[in-house]
Amino acid sequence: MCTRNPVIVVHGGSGRYKEEFKEVCLLRVKEAALQGYCRVQQGGSALDMVEEASTILENDPHFNAGCGAVLNECGEVELDAIIMDGKSLDTGAVAGVRNIANPTKLARLVMEKTKHVMLSDRGASRFAKALGFPEVPMESLITERSRERWRQNLQAASTPLDSQIDHGTIGAVALDTDGNVACATSTGGLSNTLVGRIGDTPCIGSGGYADNLSGAVSTTGKGEAIMKMTLARLIVFYMERGMSPAEAADTSLQCLWTRLQSHAGVIVIDNAGDWTAKFTTENMPWAAVTAGKVYYGIALGEIRTSAIEDICQ
Amino acid sequence: MCTRNPVIVVHGGSGRYKEEFKEVCLLRVKEAALQGYCRVQQGGSALDMVEEASTILENDPHFNAGCGAVLNECGEVELDAIIMDGKSLDTGAVAGVRNIANPTKLARLVMEKTKHVMLSDRGASRFAKALGFPEVPMESLITERSRERWRQNLQAASTPLDSQIDHGTIGAVALDTDGNVACATSTGGLSNTLVGRIGDTPCIGSGGYADNLSGAVSTTGKGEAIMKMTLARLIVFYMERGMSPAEAADTSLQCLWTRLQSHAGVIVIDNAGDWTAKFTTENMPWAAVTAGKVYYGIALGEIRTSAIEDICQ
Repeated sequence: MCTRNPVIVVHGGSGRYKEEFKEVCLLRVKEAALQGYCRVQQGGSALDMVEEASTILENDPHFNAGCGAVLNECGEVELDAIIMDGKSLDTGAVAGVRNIANPTKLARLVMEKTKHVMLSDRGASRFAKALGFPEVPMESLITERSRERWRQNLQAASTPLDSQIDHGTIGAVALDTDGNVACATSTGGLSNTLVGRIGDTPCIGSGGYADNLSGAVSTTGKGEAIMKMTLARLIVFYMERGMSPAEAADTSLQCLWTRLQSHAGVIVIDNAGDWTAKFTTENMPWAAVTAGKVYYGIALGEIRTSAIEDICQ
Repeated sequence: MCTRNPVIVVHGGSGRYKEEFKEVCLLRVKEAALQGYCRVQQGGSALDMVEEASTILENDPHFNAGCGAVLNECGEVELDAIIMDGKSLDTGAVAGVRNIANPTKLARLVMEKTKHVMLSDRGASRFAKALGFPEVPMESLITERSRERWRQNLQAASTPLDSQIDHGTIGAVALDTDGNVACATSTGGLSNTLVGRIGDTPCIGSGGYADNLSGAVSTTGKGEAIMKMTLARLIVFYMERGMSPAEAADTSLQCLWTRLQSHAGVIVIDNAGDWTAKFTTENMPWAAVTAGKVYYGIALGEIRTSAIEDICQ
């Protein structure tokens, strides 16, 4: 089998970013992509690459995943995550976990240590405890910014929410040297949702999908609309029919708008290493690393490039 | 707009049925299809038809949904259900609900009364309570048969389970006179799973999918394999590409076997009223009602037919 040129693409959530967050979010996404890429340089798989990038962004309070997640109607953190292995279609997902800093790592354990795909709420906690997976106080995941957003929404309960402000879902797709693709997506959901709301992120085919026969996708946006389109699976269908990642992403985002008048962002990779980062919101910080270069951007149409050398210590 | 000839198709779960259950399960599925069909005769929509049929089978202890559901590792009932409206793509789903006799009705309320698609576990209970939705003691949902199955599995914990025995997921697809399609699926999952396990049923595109532009699907089988293929969405995708319901069902069930060596059952309807019931397990009780006839069967290749008159009182 030919050795493939590895690629990783990472996003930090589609939406409308305030000026003061744009550069720092872009920088962090770029760092996460570089660190994810290092995993393959060290002999890791596509799964290891996407897990590494997701974990870094979950630990960064600028994003709506892990620490920094938005709060539900009761002011609590509920985290969702998925990870999928394109080689076997094996998948792990967790929904509504409350005391876990890195739900993507827990999702990977669901995939590797159980016969199941998805565990939620109390069952996911029970599984984490049984494995000795580190639990953290919920307070350690809550930032002043997410608390303030929650308070504002409570006061403006009758005003329609601008869902573009709830950005910060994170995700990654990767291709490793063996030709395996993988995806991961992790989120705190939308601010002030009902307790127990499960969005697109942990739902296979909505928040992410990965199949070595075609490619891998991670999505971000208003979860309910993404679910109704099974957006990640739709993009993979289009790639199965011969479209490039960019064509499949554009066609699917257009469908999402035509059918449901909803915006979103996606990162897509195919099994030959072609990739794209597309969004119909104002912003989505994204970064891709392959063949000695990093590509990144946050505004529509923006692609910056820089060379990388010896990034992996 | 032309008035369509309404159709409903109902299934009672794919698997291997013991002789003593075959006729009674087939009879009950047939009754549920007839009652669902009556709803459209009384002016109801495709959504009303699938909700009615699902509710009847949830209330019947012969099926693994509502009363009669199998038990998780702790001997508890956890119910999952989805309902989807092909007109708007609006969807409601509940996962891991414990004290609800009719999760399909609760799923419909999630669709109609919230901005969300899916609520799980404690959040779904909280939502049910807030709406005054009837709660029932968990014991009232547990049959001696499901308790016995749970006990046997506990004793044989090291033996691989025969998933064909865990049959009884129920579902329905329908087309109404306005040309709207809908689907519903409801289940207790697999016996002795981990607490909080979410299977295919409530996951949009896996346990069901409905789109007026093509058709509607309800699936049954080993949830984890169905999820990895997003089986319901796959069938709809093939119909979008021009396949008939039967061709789309056969092609998708073949994919499920080729990729994951897994069996399943599906009912499929398209927006012109063509329909099919297909399964690769030994049995699946199913029934369809349209144009004065009921079609039904439980074994591979079996199609019985009888005329109906004045069924709706």
